Amino acid sequence: MLLKNSLRNIMAGVAMLAAVPAMAQQNYASDSATIRKIYNNALTSTKSYEDLRYLTKKIGARLSGSPQAAAAVEWSRQLMEEMNLDRVYLQEVMVPHWVRGDKEIGRIYNSKQVGSLDVNIAALGGSVGTGEQGLSAEVVEVKSFEELEKLGKKNVKGKIVFFNRPFDNTEIVTMRAYGGAVDQRGGGPVAAAKLGAVGVLVRSMTNDIQDVPHTGGTRYADGVEKIPAAAISTKGAEQLSSLLKNDPNLKFHMRMTSETLPDVLSYNVIGEIRGTEKPDEIIVVGGHLDSWDIGEGAHDDGTGVMQSIEVLRLFKDLGIKPKRTIRAVMFMNEENGTRGGRKYAEEAKAKGEKHVAAIESDEGGFTPRGFGLTGNEAQYAKLLTWKPLLAPYGLHDLEKGGGGADINPLKGQGSVALIGYLPDSQRYFDYHHTEIDVFENVNRREMQLGAASMASLVYLISQYGL
Amino acid sequence: MLLKNSLRNIMAGVAMLAAVPAMAQQNYASDSATIRKIYNNALTSTKSYEDLRYLTKKIGARLSGSPQAAAAVEWSRQLMEEMNLDRVYLQEVMVPHWVRGDKEIGRIYNSKQVGSLDVNIAALGGSVGTGEQGLSAEVVEVKSFEELEKLGKKNVKGKIVFFNRPFDNTEIVTMRAYGGAVDQRGGGPVAAAKLGAVGVLVRSMTNDIQDVPHTGGTRYADGVEKIPAAAISTKGAEQLSSLLKNDPNLKFHMRMTSETLPDVLSYNVIGEIRGTEKPDEIIVVGGHLDSWDIGEGAHDDGTGVMQSIEVLRLFKDLGIKPKRTIRAVMFMNEENGTRGGRKYAEEAKAKGEKHVAAIESDEGGFTPRGFGLTGNEAQYAKLLTWKPLLAPYGLHDLEKGGGGADINPLKGQGSVALIGYLPDSQRYFDYHHTEIDVFENVNRREMQLGAASMASLVYLISQYGL
Repeated sequence: MLLKNSLRNIMAGVAMLAAVPAMAQQNYASDSATIRKIYNNALTSTKSYEDLRYLTKKIGARLSGSPQAAAAVEWSRQLMEEMNLDRVYLQEVMVPHWVRGDKEIGRIYNSKQVGSLDVNIAALGGSVGTGEQGLSAEVVEVKSFEELEKLGKKNVKGKIVFFNRPFDNTEIVTMRAYGGAVDQRGGGPVAAAKLGAVGVLVRSMTNDIQDVPHTGGTRYADGVEKIPAAAISTKGAEQLSSLLKNDPNLKFHMRMTSETLPDVLSYNVIGEIRGTEKPDEIIVVGGHLDSWDIGEGAHDDGTGVMQSIEVLRLFKDLGIKPKRTIRAVMFMNEENGTRGGRKYAEEAKAKGEKHVAAIESDEGGFTPRGFGLTGNEAQYAKLLTWKPLLAPYGLHDLEKGGGGADINPLKGQGSVALIGYLPDSQRYFDYHHTEIDVFENVNRREMQLGAASMASLVYLISQYGL
Repeated sequence: MLLKNSLRNIMAGVAMLAAVPAMAQQNYASDSATIRKIYNNALTSTKSYEDLRYLTKKIGARLSGSPQAAAAVEWSRQLMEEMNLDRVYLQEVMVPHWVRGDKEIGRIYNSKQVGSLDVNIAALGGSVGTGEQGLSAEVVEVKSFEELEKLGKKNVKGKIVFFNRPFDNTEIVTMRAYGGAVDQRGGGPVAAAKLGAVGVLVRSMTNDIQDVPHTGGTRYADGVEKIPAAAISTKGAEQLSSLLKNDPNLKFHMRMTSETLPDVLSYNVIGEIRGTEKPDEIIVVGGHLDSWDIGEGAHDDGTGVMQSIEVLRLFKDLGIKPKRTIRAVMFMNEENGTRGGRKYAEEAKAKGEKHVAAIESDEGGFTPRGFGLTGNEAQYAKLLTWKPLLAPYGLHDLEKGGGGADINPLKGQGSVALIGYLPDSQRYFDYHHTEIDVFENVNRREMQLGAASMASLVYLISQYGL
């Protein structure tokens, strides 16, 4: 059924393109056959999935600056060295080195101090600690920064601000729900500290009601006191909110020994297949090698890393010689600094490199839905002409807008198109930044369909530019 | 992004439809708003998911004829009785009563009888047992019925035939890979027995290499000896195949105490909202209430059952009064007899009921991809006019062909359209017919998106016919 439809779509595409002279060179039947080979190979190979198993199970969590991050650098370098690529190299980058310290304690005491309830919290990345004794304070719950402002210093000073705006579960694409809530995590500590708060709790970034806290980066600002900030599990958030209604003077005790150590030298890891006709035109495909320090960084972003290397493997294995250069980049430090992405863009600029496109996979290893492109109208129009070749593989959502934290710093360098790979988003925030972002929750076929989707788009761009 | 695109698509749809007078009555903006409400409600409700938890955890596996199947009938009847529907009733149907008996034993002995390896097997549904002592025999491996025929009686007599054709993992839609392998499970025992085989092993129906066997129905034929047949896990199949290469005279020992008991009275469970304008025109939405006897029947087909009831709940909750009658049918005995589906069609015919459409959900509670329709050209064309309303929710694959085992018996009754709900298929055969088809592997959002997809299509058909 699908294949018949696919052929019909391709024919429709060909008919449509008859009116577009500039595209006349493209051989849709041959490209369709090549893309079919890419998927066939990806779906019958277990290499990348076994490599992911190694990265997640043998190396594990790999926050920037950790020994595991260093191990991931060396491991992925060796992995690409074995692939007979044209070039494999490291790109130096100084990264933050934040450590979580002891397992956090989060405890609700009622105002009479006669009962307590433990809830699961996780220090936000970059947060200062509470000191060995922890801190205890009353809690003020808000759903927005406006609400916090209205409360003002008199109601906030000396308290813990509890940001409890949930995900909007009516959003079909969960990334949008995340986008509607994550300002609390990033901006909460500064806004709260400005009003004299002593700590911050942020409802975990997930659609689900779960017992696991979701960590993630937060920010401080110069001249504003750095106060400890933690994510509280959504189950804990619901409990705390409910208890506050009956006992507004309850106290929350939080203990975190997190701290920031001096920056550490680390690396982006890069592997390259040189283009046969336009080697100076570069197509980047990448994910980030670092992960948060809890769980195994499987969907975030072990799959993106493995898919990027898999794109190179597919080209090598199928003997496809790209006309333009393809570079797989394992970015370092996406999670708490984006230093790797910025460093990559800086060096590209300094060297005068010409990037045609950059494709990032950092939304999990789930079944394909499409790509989002930030570029000019002509680039988007060209992407749409490829829809008949991509839709048979579930890639229907070819959207305007998109990219990724690691490739966005390339913006403005020539006419580089920034492209985000869009997997299905429904399950992503079940796992994101938690102890359950583990290998077992990655499905081999879904991950490999993603790799093949990226390789197919890279192939088309490598043949025809963008 | 998605919502903006959605609006654009809808506008394009409206423009397209300007040329189709028969469709001019449809108010796309209003329908779009109604469908949006359906999804919003489904995505923020936990009722159906909690009901699924009850069905899978408190009732559990519910093979036709089992006490648990009876419990599922009564439970789902009560569930719908509480919904203030226009009618809830049971439809009597006699069903097979097959029981698995003891946990099966599958053991490979080398030809010198000095070593053995246990592998996981599961009796196929309907299979006779081996007797208390089990049976031991040499094994002949085949990949096809042609290969078996060529081997002939002289090579097959007295042996166990091992059907080991794997899934074609290059199929994007895994249902097609299933379709390319499942003839071994259904037809293996008869083909093997005709050549004098004493038993059958069938490679489990899955894309993955796993240690769990996948059960499923098999068939016998009058006049052909009934020989015991079991599914062997794909890991076990790989081991057995590998060992056979070096030791073709190894023996396989299988022990199963499965048996078929007398038929049992059971029921389809039906709930109905009467149409306001054309109550005699019926739209069925259904799944099957029975499941295999291992695991919890979560994706197969607990989610289909819950989604069907959820369609009714959404209509009630949102106060949508359908013009045509909507009937949620929990079919009994899909897995090993399809007696419920056939009984439903027989009674519909006997009563002269007019079915407009029947929608079945029996491919798991995964993220939506589309619908497949078996009907006439006009019906398919009408479905396509609704694409602008459905695609924003991931329903891009509106295919010709499709239906489901329980609704297919309605074929030919008037101009009923048979429609299969198509979720993403990548993970389905990880769980299908196994002990790991459990509640924990169902994601609430994915299941609810499916329910909302079905409700949206039911809504459109209830308004405009098909």
